[in-house]
Amino acid sequence: MDKLDRLIRVARGEEQAELLLKNARLVNVLSGEIHEADVAVADTRVVGMGDYEAQEVMDLGGAYLCPGLIDGHVHIESTMLGIPEFARVVVPYGTTTVIADPHEIANVLGLDGIKYMMESSKENPLGVYFMLPSCVPSTDLETAGSQLMSYDLAPLLQERWVVGVAEMMNYPGVLARSPDVLARIGIARDKRVDGHAPHLGGKDLNAYVAAGIRSDHESTSLEEAREKLQRGMHIMIREGSVAKNMEELLPLVTPENSRRCMFVSDDNDPADLLDNGHMDRVVRKAIRLGLEPMLAIQLATTNPAEYFGLRHLGAIAPGYRADMVVCDDLESFEVKKVFRGGHLVAEEGKILATIDKRPPVPLRGTVNVAWIELEHFRIKAEGGRARVIGLTTNQLVTRQLMEEVKTMDGLAVADVERDVLKLAVIERHLASGNTGLGFVKGFGLKRGALASSVAHDSHNIIVVGTNDLDMMTAAVEIVKLQGGLVAAADGSVLETLPLPIAGLMSAKSAEEVRAEMQSVEQAARGLGCTVSNPFMAMSFLALPVIPRLKLTDKGLVDVKKFDFVPLFEDGE
Amino acid sequence: MDKLDRLIRVARGEEQAELLLKNARLVNVLSGEIHEADVAVADTRVVGMGDYEAQEVMDLGGAYLCPGLIDGHVHIESTMLGIPEFARVVVPYGTTTVIADPHEIANVLGLDGIKYMMESSKENPLGVYFMLPSCVPSTDLETAGSQLMSYDLAPLLQERWVVGVAEMMNYPGVLARSPDVLARIGIARDKRVDGHAPHLGGKDLNAYVAAGIRSDHESTSLEEAREKLQRGMHIMIREGSVAKNMEELLPLVTPENSRRCMFVSDDNDPADLLDNGHMDRVVRKAIRLGLEPMLAIQLATTNPAEYFGLRHLGAIAPGYRADMVVCDDLESFEVKKVFRGGHLVAEEGKILATIDKRPPVPLRGTVNVAWIELEHFRIKAEGGRARVIGLTTNQLVTRQLMEEVKTMDGLAVADVERDVLKLAVIERHLASGNTGLGFVKGFGLKRGALASSVAHDSHNIIVVGTNDLDMMTAAVEIVKLQGGLVAAADGSVLETLPLPIAGLMSAKSAEEVRAEMQSVEQAARGLGCTVSNPFMAMSFLALPVIPRLKLTDKGLVDVKKFDFVPLFEDGE
Repeated sequence: MDKLDRLIRVARGEEQAELLLKNARLVNVLSGEIHEADVAVADTRVVGMGDYEAQEVMDLGGAYLCPGLIDGHVHIESTMLGIPEFARVVVPYGTTTVIADPHEIANVLGLDGIKYMMESSKENPLGVYFMLPSCVPSTDLETAGSQLMSYDLAPLLQERWVVGVAEMMNYPGVLARSPDVLARIGIARDKRVDGHAPHLGGKDLNAYVAAGIRSDHESTSLEEAREKLQRGMHIMIREGSVAKNMEELLPLVTPENSRRCMFVSDDNDPADLLDNGHMDRVVRKAIRLGLEPMLAIQLATTNPAEYFGLRHLGAIAPGYRADMVVCDDLESFEVKKVFRGGHLVAEEGKILATIDKRPPVPLRGTVNVAWIELEHFRIKAEGGRARVIGLTTNQLVTRQLMEEVKTMDGLAVADVERDVLKLAVIERHLASGNTGLGFVKGFGLKRGALASSVAHDSHNIIVVGTNDLDMMTAAVEIVKLQGGLVAAADGSVLETLPLPIAGLMSAKSAEEVRAEMQSVEQAARGLGCTVSNPFMAMSFLALPVIPRLKLTDKGLVDVKKFDFVPLFEDGE
Repeated sequence: MDKLDRLIRVARGEEQAELLLKNARLVNVLSGEIHEADVAVADTRVVGMGDYEAQEVMDLGGAYLCPGLIDGHVHIESTMLGIPEFARVVVPYGTTTVIADPHEIANVLGLDGIKYMMESSKENPLGVYFMLPSCVPSTDLETAGSQLMSYDLAPLLQERWVVGVAEMMNYPGVLARSPDVLARIGIARDKRVDGHAPHLGGKDLNAYVAAGIRSDHESTSLEEAREKLQRGMHIMIREGSVAKNMEELLPLVTPENSRRCMFVSDDNDPADLLDNGHMDRVVRKAIRLGLEPMLAIQLATTNPAEYFGLRHLGAIAPGYRADMVVCDDLESFEVKKVFRGGHLVAEEGKILATIDKRPPVPLRGTVNVAWIELEHFRIKAEGGRARVIGLTTNQLVTRQLMEEVKTMDGLAVADVERDVLKLAVIERHLASGNTGLGFVKGFGLKRGALASSVAHDSHNIIVVGTNDLDMMTAAVEIVKLQGGLVAAADGSVLETLPLPIAGLMSAKSAEEVRAEMQSVEQAARGLGCTVSNPFMAMSFLALPVIPRLKLTDKGLVDVKKFDFVPLFEDGE
């Protein structure tokens, strides 16, 4: 009430504003116009447009003043940066709000992980709202660190920073009316339930939407997106570091339907953020591709704000939070200044706000393995051909190859000549000792091994290697680091990228993470690796919801059958 | 959950739908397209588009299928019809949902009045949502039947049929930060607070919007509406029976901002509804004035639904309530069929649904007066000129005239030659005996008197007359009827329109009300009345928030001074 009192007083001119931005060309996403305005701010809010007295007056000299940009769906963990560091990187690009789905850390740490993310997001110049992970774990074909039930999540929905239930990937569960799955949708009540339904169409799409799921960010074709839009879904046009759907989907957007479209990044890698920007890059590209700048900016501001019911965000008007960005022109859309809650928090690409990087709450170690022994990596030759995971370039899907495997002393071993390497997934949450073993073709390693604690969705330790000793060396280093990426050869560790936060995130700066990533990738290339992003490629080999052959800590999975299959043909 | 289960099963084609509308040209307000579709319905909801089996198949033969129309702001009391009868009249025109503000009955009966309206709205083919009256009474210059505090209203906001706090007319109270007024805004929390701010602009508008008030339906000029839109208000374009703002405001609407505009009727009279329609008339006129049909339909469907957070209304898509209208073409926009919750409730202008008109809850008598005596109407002549209320044709504002008054035996009396008639306002809620007396010029009565229990906002009994006996006869008849409109002359009642429901609404059909209104107006003309809508004109003479001179049960009010003034010059 005191705040409202002050707002009204300042708006009426009875008290001085804190800041007045003079001579702005206001991108008014509400009236759909660009008009001149002087904008006054008090107590983190826009109080109004007009001729106000203010403690500080800033002349924008006719520059454009836009609402702060909003990313409608992002997994911050995939940047490998902690939230404060993520904020430091993206805020200067004009992002003032993100809707985060802490799905990765929730698979590792459950509610503790969500809590860590929520607490890390306070006291930063970035507003972070949360959607609660709806599918932890995503399947029972692997061992996750947590299992989140509807009753675990329900209490968090009371929080104002929690705006709904995140992407419901388990669409078979929805269609089968699984009570547990429908309960997870039900807890959202008036808040949002995001979807995740690649290629879903026709009657099954009708059913999925009827269940209350009103957004999707997985459309890859115009037809798919159009059907989803027609059926009542808000279309999140994804333009991340890897998955880029804007060129395909942008023709969908018309002035009559644009309100139901928004931009999201989903996943970003730190080098891409540092080199190319965040939502500013997305808006820039949309304008370059021909979308009217007003619509492009609406898709990154008021549209996500309205979808998520964030009525104080996404526009510059009385009572709205004073999250604003300044640009000299809308075509290049280069962000010059960023205000969050009326404070200048970034200028000319540099953060000005203080970033508090201290860990907000204690965080458990998350690499809890049964003691790793060399024999855990041994594969007994069982005769017949083996099912080998075949990498496909720049895609998450794999092939199932049937290959003769090289044997030695009754053991099946890697065959570097034919690029059939060994793959291991070591459970790291319960110290169960579960180790899945198999073969993979496509990495090209001639010696050594690579290991990672990032392996979707359960994030067990995944290791690819040419021999058991190096695989063990790399895996043990992951344990010592309590998470990270490792390249090892000849019994020694070559390079590492430590990820001590849940085995997913670094405590370092984006620049350091990028440098460490370059080092560890360079080491991989030195070992003969021919894949450009070997750790990212590896991180999807344990994900048993994307076709076709995957390896989890529990064994080899044929995703088409959605069941385990023996490694060797004769094992059937 | 059972409902959701069934929806999913039908959507997937596992069970038969109840209804399939084949060969529709679907006006898809979500994707902004018109496309062919077959629409299936189960359990009151749209389950999806596609080739479905259904118990009943209806071939629309290429007709347009639009979402049911929504009136974003209406005072049902002003139709003088009970809600069931109102539903019977408007549903065949395609209105399936209204957002009602029971401001009038709340001034008479407080929470009991709101409850009566809420209960009357059940079991009808019209969906009625409520905004809670924020300003009861509107001033302390008159005696209302109730005083609603924030704590009276707060519990009702838990109801799903209550979508917010209605038009905040007391903008001086907002601007002065009256704790009581801000408390009434505060109780809305995540629900809406509608505005009512004619001519408010500049810094005071900034303050009013900053307080959380995000709509307005009082703009009468394009500039006023544009400023409000720019400041973050949703613009309710009013097109009622009397106040018609569409022609002036429609140029505001562009595809880039149309989502923040909607159509509302505010006040309707029964003859206008019967002769010209309801929201269909508004859509038709907008299209005729050049608005793109898609936008016009959005303004009467998804836009109000989104503003009020009614996520299951305003569009035809899976999970939405199956409220739909069929039209042969969009230019004439003549509604042929109306479905509510998937049931055909009207066809070719005729209601098919059963309307339950039984009183839903007991309703107190609301004409509680101190026994009316002839001397109550006497005005002692005090010398000097009198302040006389001057009617202005077709406007709610009045003039203050200074006139010599005819006297007889020391009493000031009506002067029919100069058309200076007597006016009385008799308090009818508390039986306090309060009677305000004054003079009015402009009705032209040569004999007899007119009386009404409809007199904004407190709805005391208002009487205009040429002599005390006829004024008393008319007023006593109001008491006998427990509310209504009356014409009397020569000590006898000539014609009546009984309004037994709170003195505001009839228990009869719209056709009967129209006929009774014609009779009572004709009787008024027979007495010499020259005003075309004398009872409506009279009903605003007691409203002390519209300039300039008004009469309440407490006395004569100079609205400019916002205070009482003496009737006679020498009384000062």
